[in-house]
Amino acid sequence: MQPHHDGSARYVPQQEPRLGESVDVFVRVPAGADVRQVHVRTTGDGEPRFAEAVVDRADVGDVWWRAEVEARNPVSNYRFLLSGRGRRWLTAAGVVDHDVPDASDFKLVTHAPPPAWARDAVVYQIFPDRFARSAAADGRPLPAWAIPCDWDTPVIGSGPETPYQCYGGDLDGIVERLDHLDRLGVNTVYLTPIFPARSNHRYDAASFDRVDPLLGGDAALARLADAVRARGWRLLGDITSNHTGDGHEWFTAAAHEHAPERELYYFDESTGDHESWNGVTSLPKLNWGSVELRRRFAVADDSPLRRWLRPPYGLDGWRVDVANMTGRRGADAYTREVAALLRSVVTQTRPDGLVMAEHGHDHTGDLDRDGWHGTMNYVGFTDPVWSWLCHGDRPVPNFLGTPGGVVRRDSGAVLATMNAYRSLVSWRSYVHSWQLLGSHDSARIRTVVGDAARQQVAAGLLATLPGTPMIFAGDELGLTGTNGEGSRTPMPWHRPRSWDAGTFATYRSLIALRRGEPALRHGGLRWLHHDPDTLVYLREAPTGAVLVLARRAAGAPVRLAGLPAVENLYGGAPALRPDPAGGLNLPGDGPTFQVWRLP
Amino acid sequence: MQPHHDGSARYVPQQEPRLGESVDVFVRVPAGADVRQVHVRTTGDGEPRFAEAVVDRADVGDVWWRAEVEARNPVSNYRFLLSGRGRRWLTAAGVVDHDVPDASDFKLVTHAPPPAWARDAVVYQIFPDRFARSAAADGRPLPAWAIPCDWDTPVIGSGPETPYQCYGGDLDGIVERLDHLDRLGVNTVYLTPIFPARSNHRYDAASFDRVDPLLGGDAALARLADAVRARGWRLLGDITSNHTGDGHEWFTAAAHEHAPERELYYFDESTGDHESWNGVTSLPKLNWGSVELRRRFAVADDSPLRRWLRPPYGLDGWRVDVANMTGRRGADAYTREVAALLRSVVTQTRPDGLVMAEHGHDHTGDLDRDGWHGTMNYVGFTDPVWSWLCHGDRPVPNFLGTPGGVVRRDSGAVLATMNAYRSLVSWRSYVHSWQLLGSHDSARIRTVVGDAARQQVAAGLLATLPGTPMIFAGDELGLTGTNGEGSRTPMPWHRPRSWDAGTFATYRSLIALRRGEPALRHGGLRWLHHDPDTLVYLREAPTGAVLVLARRAAGAPVRLAGLPAVENLYGGAPALRPDPAGGLNLPGDGPTFQVWRLP
Repeated sequence: MQPHHDGSARYVPQQEPRLGESVDVFVRVPAGADVRQVHVRTTGDGEPRFAEAVVDRADVGDVWWRAEVEARNPVSNYRFLLSGRGRRWLTAAGVVDHDVPDASDFKLVTHAPPPAWARDAVVYQIFPDRFARSAAADGRPLPAWAIPCDWDTPVIGSGPETPYQCYGGDLDGIVERLDHLDRLGVNTVYLTPIFPARSNHRYDAASFDRVDPLLGGDAALARLADAVRARGWRLLGDITSNHTGDGHEWFTAAAHEHAPERELYYFDESTGDHESWNGVTSLPKLNWGSVELRRRFAVADDSPLRRWLRPPYGLDGWRVDVANMTGRRGADAYTREVAALLRSVVTQTRPDGLVMAEHGHDHTGDLDRDGWHGTMNYVGFTDPVWSWLCHGDRPVPNFLGTPGGVVRRDSGAVLATMNAYRSLVSWRSYVHSWQLLGSHDSARIRTVVGDAARQQVAAGLLATLPGTPMIFAGDELGLTGTNGEGSRTPMPWHRPRSWDAGTFATYRSLIALRRGEPALRHGGLRWLHHDPDTLVYLREAPTGAVLVLARRAAGAPVRLAGLPAVENLYGGAPALRPDPAGGLNLPGDGPTFQVWRLP
Repeated sequence: MQPHHDGSARYVPQQEPRLGESVDVFVRVPAGADVRQVHVRTTGDGEPRFAEAVVDRADVGDVWWRAEVEARNPVSNYRFLLSGRGRRWLTAAGVVDHDVPDASDFKLVTHAPPPAWARDAVVYQIFPDRFARSAAADGRPLPAWAIPCDWDTPVIGSGPETPYQCYGGDLDGIVERLDHLDRLGVNTVYLTPIFPARSNHRYDAASFDRVDPLLGGDAALARLADAVRARGWRLLGDITSNHTGDGHEWFTAAAHEHAPERELYYFDESTGDHESWNGVTSLPKLNWGSVELRRRFAVADDSPLRRWLRPPYGLDGWRVDVANMTGRRGADAYTREVAALLRSVVTQTRPDGLVMAEHGHDHTGDLDRDGWHGTMNYVGFTDPVWSWLCHGDRPVPNFLGTPGGVVRRDSGAVLATMNAYRSLVSWRSYVHSWQLLGSHDSARIRTVVGDAARQQVAAGLLATLPGTPMIFAGDELGLTGTNGEGSRTPMPWHRPRSWDAGTFATYRSLIALRRGEPALRHGGLRWLHHDPDTLVYLREAPTGAVLVLARRAAGAPVRLAGLPAVENLYGGAPALRPDPAGGLNLPGDGPTFQVWRLP
């Protein structure tokens, strides 16, 4: 094993350092490693400084070194210098024997942490039009854009009808199905947009001031919020900060050249054209240079950002749509200001509010400030997991739209990608980001991996790696879908025989495992082994540790030295005891996903 | 060879894109590479987009693909997707077969470019107290702090006397020695501070409003500037933006609690203590949150930043001391604002002004904005070159103060470090940063490498890699020094026999080579080969190309395929012709440094 440090409590006992506070950090050095001396390097106020670490203690197999790091700046970088016969750096990217830039340094962050509940969240994502339909939905008049669909109508994944197929799911329908979520074991509900719009996805909001009557209106949201709260769960909304729909009341008002709403958007005053999301003119882009926009959207006491966080709705926070583009346009670069503004308004309104950013590609430059608490980690989790587990001859499109779609890659490449993104953000931002196997914007994991056995491996990674699991409704039933729109399948409540009961049981067990095991929610992460088809890691907390084996295929059993006997917690493999030479032999069958508890 | 792109004119013909302009970018793919299709990925306004490249042309051995990239934002990232049997990314970090974060993407920058003269500069750094003493210096009264030293007095590298040894070099002394610089072939003179202070290094300025009388005063600077200009050269000053000396007129005035100068510094009003550079109380830190500081230092029409750029002094720009700490203190993060302010004031005052940042470690996050034009590239050049060429049993301290000093490393590690830092900044910032083998703040290169042969290799890298060469006065004579202060050796004008004439000839030839060969100043960079003791690369411009071989030791000759016959330009090796199988055989002796011209 390699010398190790990460941002979890075993290595950084003070998880919420204050600005100016000096905190202990620990490095764990396996006995026999070429390490005679350890220094910590900090770069407070922009200047590198070295301080010697001391040996704090030794336990079975490891020497623990201790050093002090001052949280000198809101984000304070540090790394370790390991000196022996050679001299190596230990950064969040691992141990390296040459000089590397500071980007992968470990990070202490003194901004206020995300709300405590978010650390233990298991998020269930609901696309309201497709989740469940209450009896009340039957009588509702449909807007002109809607193409009414029966619950069994096939979803059209791509075509002119795609945004207009209307299945009529509503918020009371969700209330009626909360027992399903309870059986699954999730504790946080995330709703894609619920404001009125001209499409089934509602990312083209026509207003932020009322809940779409098609979904049951404001009162239905209050009922859903009550029902969710009654179970001790959390409820998150989805707000579009990058654009509105062209049917939005702000935008229609902005048609008048002298209207106060004019400045909320980008108009070319010579042509009258407006800037849009990716050139889609029905999605006019918001101009965050506008003080009036900041006021209306966020600062004002009755702003939508605040209003829906308060009773009787009481959303617990927002997922922010297209956060990666919000505030960015040509020379305009307001993204960080907007993120900080939205976070401060949310947490002023309710101190336990959460602000999660959708990010279309590399999110690492946008986290660890006083803005987004985390992101949807497509690039550092979804993409590499898909690359590892994808199966079949037809390429599946990835979230980024990379030409050629998902490419099958071995563990080494997958791990390199995961580590690259992880190493650029603080541990806090990493664990509070959502790790997901898919969403309403992507193919479904079942389609990507091809069968239930590999889906189990994917769900195992989802449940046992450090990020916050997010499950797109229906994945737990083995639903399929080849692209974002196509995966917005109505939940087959009325066809229980179509459910993949085994996959449901898998998700249920894995979620229970995560929720019951502190090491899986709050522990550190040490990679122990990878070969092309295998990943092995430890999740370790002061309260205990678990060993995880993920295999996408059968192969040579892996032998690990230096571990004690372990009891199986998940997957059905036997308990393991060290062989006479002290090695644990992990099973070689596959695909498989196994978890053992260390004593 | 690998598919290649860099920011030089062969690959990006439009070197000064305007915001919103779309420019062509080219990728060069060696025949036989596994590339059937090329896409460019951009992330304008924060959203990834892919566009197909087309084959522009094919020449001997290469297919050139062309794509269009919009300079959508002030810094616009792009990378290439190479599709064949496999799918790989080409970023500024090279070709990689798994997904990587955007940090190493290629970058188009629309901020105004550095002045044209800086591209062709060869900089000569002078520490005035130690360079040359005019006759006028003899009569000058010394200040109380000064310990007068004869020109032959040994420099004390470390101790209480170190900052006070006063050798009496002055600006007229420099004027008298400009012929030496002319023989060497440099064209830019950089002076460390010349304002009055309480030390020989003058980084503890007592004023920014006059030249130290010990150096000859304001009039001597005007004479030096005239003499430098008369040769068609450039002259740069050195300004401390992070701190002043505690003898500075601003700081002494700030002692009064209600003085307007109080806000220029950080005082703890309860204890009366002030914040200092690294705790050295004689160097009080400037508070860039102060509007008054911004006014006095930069904005005001008679500010020091402006005044010395105007006739009769006409400095061509500033090297900014401790730029890495400037504006950083706890939660204060003004660095980028200060950099942008200083640059805008300098270029307002003279449009061809240069602003170079000293940076104590990783500079990559501070470049490519509208601030510093470049940096002193210790981390991406000095450190790796030292690691590769260092020799001897006694460890030499590096600039960063890394415990254990410089570690000897092989080419692979050295190249990885160079590439890591290079890949995080634009080509423009890379080539305009100063590459240096040492300075008044480090050991001397001769001491690091141990002999003239390895110093030649170091000087060869200095003269032929893309950054702007900076030479610390005396290196060209083979002077030695084991640390920053100890390397501030008086120039041995009166002991010409002590000069290493061979090293002087080496520097002279290499500088002439660079100044005569556009590919060495403006060309792209392709690494062709490395083994532990060898580095081989091409510098290629539309006007021609050169092949470079650097060896730190003798070893197996390197054979390169795909190159034509080449004529030797430097180093004395023969011309090379392809062998019957089409390979060029490079000599295996070493240490050696050789340059050949391609036809």
